[in-house]
Amino acid sequence: MSKSTISILGSTGSIGCNTLKVVEFLGNIRVVALGAGRNMEKFAAQVAKFKPELVSVDNEKCAEELLEHLHKTNTKALRIELNEKGLIAVATHNEATTVVSATVGAVGFVPTLRALEAGKRVALANKETLVMAGELMTKAARESGAEILPVDSEHNALHQCLRGEKREEVKRLILTASGGPFREKSKTEIENATREEALNHPTWEMGDKITIDSATLMNKGLEVIEAHWLFDFDADEIGVVVHPQSVVHSMVEFIDGSIIAQLGVTDMKHAIQYALTYPKRQKNCLPPLDFAQISKLTFENPDLDKFPCLALAYKALKQGGTMPATLNAANEIAVQAFLDGKIRLSDIARINEAVMNEHESGEVKNLETVLKADENARKKAIMKLEKTASAT
Amino acid sequence: MSKSTISILGSTGSIGCNTLKVVEFLGNIRVVALGAGRNMEKFAAQVAKFKPELVSVDNEKCAEELLEHLHKTNTKALRIELNEKGLIAVATHNEATTVVSATVGAVGFVPTLRALEAGKRVALANKETLVMAGELMTKAARESGAEILPVDSEHNALHQCLRGEKREEVKRLILTASGGPFREKSKTEIENATREEALNHPTWEMGDKITIDSATLMNKGLEVIEAHWLFDFDADEIGVVVHPQSVVHSMVEFIDGSIIAQLGVTDMKHAIQYALTYPKRQKNCLPPLDFAQISKLTFENPDLDKFPCLALAYKALKQGGTMPATLNAANEIAVQAFLDGKIRLSDIARINEAVMNEHESGEVKNLETVLKADENARKKAIMKLEKTASAT
Repeated sequence: MSKSTISILGSTGSIGCNTLKVVEFLGNIRVVALGAGRNMEKFAAQVAKFKPELVSVDNEKCAEELLEHLHKTNTKALRIELNEKGLIAVATHNEATTVVSATVGAVGFVPTLRALEAGKRVALANKETLVMAGELMTKAARESGAEILPVDSEHNALHQCLRGEKREEVKRLILTASGGPFREKSKTEIENATREEALNHPTWEMGDKITIDSATLMNKGLEVIEAHWLFDFDADEIGVVVHPQSVVHSMVEFIDGSIIAQLGVTDMKHAIQYALTYPKRQKNCLPPLDFAQISKLTFENPDLDKFPCLALAYKALKQGGTMPATLNAANEIAVQAFLDGKIRLSDIARINEAVMNEHESGEVKNLETVLKADENARKKAIMKLEKTASAT
Repeated sequence: MSKSTISILGSTGSIGCNTLKVVEFLGNIRVVALGAGRNMEKFAAQVAKFKPELVSVDNEKCAEELLEHLHKTNTKALRIELNEKGLIAVATHNEATTVVSATVGAVGFVPTLRALEAGKRVALANKETLVMAGELMTKAARESGAEILPVDSEHNALHQCLRGEKREEVKRLILTASGGPFREKSKTEIENATREEALNHPTWEMGDKITIDSATLMNKGLEVIEAHWLFDFDADEIGVVVHPQSVVHSMVEFIDGSIIAQLGVTDMKHAIQYALTYPKRQKNCLPPLDFAQISKLTFENPDLDKFPCLALAYKALKQGGTMPATLNAANEIAVQAFLDGKIRLSDIARINEAVMNEHESGEVKNLETVLKADENARKKAIMKLEKTASAT
């Protein structure tokens, strides 16, 4: 068997690092291109180890820093590209059969679209790309014959539950949600939650943005939209159930009432490896799930009053068009503002809702429509932010 | 689409009655033949309603009784056959495409084998047939191209979890067990359990024999042997986990650590309909599983000291040959003796073990080998029974 080949967008992030661990464990995958942001020390170590032919970094300064770090290693000459152009080069590298899309937020959007247009298998961790422009992404995949394999543990679980099943025999998808660190807190406690409290996720270790989104349940809302595009189900065919232990990663309910669930340890390496080796399942480096150690699994309905971001996501999906991209952009600004200590946790939903209310959803005709909606929403969110911050 | 056609072995039992309810609900299945034992009042009602062309009953007296009951209805002339010959005629009726094998114990053994030899799809509720002679059953199915679809909820769940998956990528099967009514009782309490306590199953409503087998966990042991034959896994690749809520009906663990589970309401009609309509899933008459109503799901390891019958089944499977048939036969005698108030609940395991210890397992060459092992074990069990009963 010839070695499979991958490129990674966002290799120094949580998913990127875990992907490289999986690559190392499997031993039969060649890394041809890597794209990172600004963490050049970590990136240099990855480049020295996996020896990609091409890398992409944020800017000239990062490139210099990278070369400086690499100087100490015996890394051979490599091609360095910059910024979005660089990420697109990584995403469309002609030797890569699979592209792991693992950047955070909107930056991976165009590169991922280009990978799909080029017919690459995309292992998708960056849910924002589907939230922003699911229509364009899935159309590109259909036209080129590219496959999208979800790396999000919930969607990866759904993908597994749907194996060997027929679309028309599925009644609904059920995404599980841990409920985040504030599941049992009051509205007031959530209002006044600190950055540290919000970043303390009960079951999953992830990057900052997604951890805050998990605390507000916006992450689950974005996942509902993602599931819509990945599996072709409407908003009212996608349910969310809170399951604090995160052992059941998601479920599918069929028309005969049967429910198929996927369970596993809470480690992203499982979903990453599944996407890299699909349709084959291979042994991985993770311990098995120990049922004797699972004291109990519990389930409850999500509280939309305490977590309005989830309701906003459903609303955006139902309105369709550019509304999900608008919500996503507003949310990125608001989450960053919270991380920067500028607003309170509950302000995130307020800003998202206010930006949505001012947006009239239009049809997603092309890339420009989406990017414009994204840009407008960011501007409006920043304006709301200033008002919110001054009011605090 | 032409109507599918079924015949049922054991139509007045729990599975038989539920099968007819499913047939009634689906509305597109014709019942061509029915076999029952001695409950002629119930059977006459079924015959009058579903108008099979052929029926089988235990003996002449039953036949007369049936005709008497039918006299009051406007049922047209129908063919009546007797005993095993009759059940074989039902099982091999040339118009039946699917045979539901739902008799209790060894009586359905030869008819089910004949159905498989005739290339019928067999919806198998009678696990004893596979326990007694899995080799012969699966060989007959292979040679005729017949399909065995498990109606046992656990194996039906495994069948669903294995859809679209590859045998070589499965690590192990995990059968769930409710643990029965004595899960939290002490050894002494189990020793002295009454018939009523043993028949009070916490989650499933079933016939008497299987309910007692559930109380001793022998049922789970027989299921381990059944799973071996249905799915081709060794004893050490089939696990049992106690899950008192019976919401997860069983699970499959893959080599990548992923676990796929099937969940549903505890009603045999689900598995029956799945077997009748496979590979299609269709809407059924059952309510959906309500996650908000599931307070919690728990899991624990089975206690082999309190429930030695489970360990005996593993031992019989590992020894192979005629040992499982021996265990099964001894158990049928012992369970009946318990139901008749002749022995205590814990005597069942003692009798099973004693009969196994005296049996030297031989190769299952043909039907005669199995029937002889079965007969010998019954004789020995009856002898043990007399000793046990006189000692009590």
